Amino acid sequence: MHTLDFLAFDADDTLWHNENFFAATQDRLVSLLAPYAPEGIDLKERLDDVERRNLAHFGYGVKGFTLSMIETAVDVTEGRVPAALITAILEFGKEMMAHPVELLPGVAETLEELAGRYRLALITKGDLFHQESKVARSGLSEFFTAIEIVSEKDAATYARVLRRHNADPARSLMVGNSVRSDILPMLALGGWAAHVPYAISWGHEAANLPDQHPRLLQLQRIDELVAALPRRIA
Amino acid sequence: MHTLDFLAFDADDTLWHNENFFAATQDRLVSLLAPYAPEGIDLKERLDDVERRNLAHFGYGVKGFTLSMIETAVDVTEGRVPAALITAILEFGKEMMAHPVELLPGVAETLEELAGRYRLALITKGDLFHQESKVARSGLSEFFTAIEIVSEKDAATYARVLRRHNADPARSLMVGNSVRSDILPMLALGGWAAHVPYAISWGHEAANLPDQHPRLLQLQRIDELVAALPRRIA
Repeated sequence: MHTLDFLAFDADDTLWHNENFFAATQDRLVSLLAPYAPEGIDLKERLDDVERRNLAHFGYGVKGFTLSMIETAVDVTEGRVPAALITAILEFGKEMMAHPVELLPGVAETLEELAGRYRLALITKGDLFHQESKVARSGLSEFFTAIEIVSEKDAATYARVLRRHNADPARSLMVGNSVRSDILPMLALGGWAAHVPYAISWGHEAANLPDQHPRLLQLQRIDELVAALPRRIA
Repeated sequence: MHTLDFLAFDADDTLWHNENFFAATQDRLVSLLAPYAPEGIDLKERLDDVERRNLAHFGYGVKGFTLSMIETAVDVTEGRVPAALITAILEFGKEMMAHPVELLPGVAETLEELAGRYRLALITKGDLFHQESKVARSGLSEFFTAIEIVSEKDAATYARVLRRHNADPARSLMVGNSVRSDILPMLALGGWAAHVPYAISWGHEAANLPDQHPRLLQLQRIDELVAALPRRIA
């Protein structure tokens, strides 16, 4: 008889708000750009296309997103974008980088309760500089025995992180909002996963949750986690 | 009697060329901008100022540098920058991200010779996505037992990395071109350091090398390292 040993948490949109800042910035960009763009053009769709194309060049994170906003502004206005608008977009980027970290409800209490009983890790993807800054500002670092910032969250990445911390996948669980990045690769590895949806989900992360899976916990909020964890595992 | 155990290498401008791509891109930007900027303005100095100010917002790396180039272009032209020039700068950024990795002379041979006798690590700062991509393309990964991409290279960072790999500072050595980032923090920690200068050094990294230090090796090229390593240490 065993219990779980290693609980890993996604950060953006699992521990703190993230996607809502991207969505709000996108809305501001659309309002700014609309007067200069041809009628009938779907600005959000255009930004989304540029962003998706640029993922291969720039990876995830605010800096790549800011570069994509600038590229979109030049493209959709066919070069008529005023320089002041470029300056405004650069400001959006700096504001997003410096934005206060807003924890989701129940996060601090849940981590505090679990920290004495399990090894807790934070596994997040994106920009190293920005993620480290958010972790520091979150006030949550003390709960984690490991903080891993990675460029992609696939089964190979989880395998590498678990190995580094001598964690058996069968006794490890990943908590996150993204089915594609947090849930499926961990289940594929023989591990456990707890899905906690976020209000907004990013198109690039879309994937279907399995209907039933013996090692998948489906929660509505992170503070349901403590009660949902299996007491013993085979 | 002991020998060294853990040899860590900086990557940019120690294992492969980096600063020359920044310098070349800067030159291209200056040529593009000159016709739109007021006479007598020092464009390199202006870019350097913007970059230095933006380090606090964006950290190190090509994406932050690209955002700084765009900001400089808008600033120095007082908004008269043509959109085509913004597009050109975005292209510069993508080209830098995708640029082939060009190893410095003697790097592959030196690593190959050392890999069987010491634990080798790569410790580099900058953008996670870009650094991982460069490590993969360098063909050098097989020589390293550890690859650490960090957001800042100070004594605290080195202490954390060495602890993670159970490496005693007194038996560890850092090889790099930057006095400020590679040499001084490692010596401060009680470790060894080998300085291999690069042809161009970035202003932000400037610092003086100690005249004499019992744990400092001063080399001209990386292929002098094997012969320069101490056979035994106290």
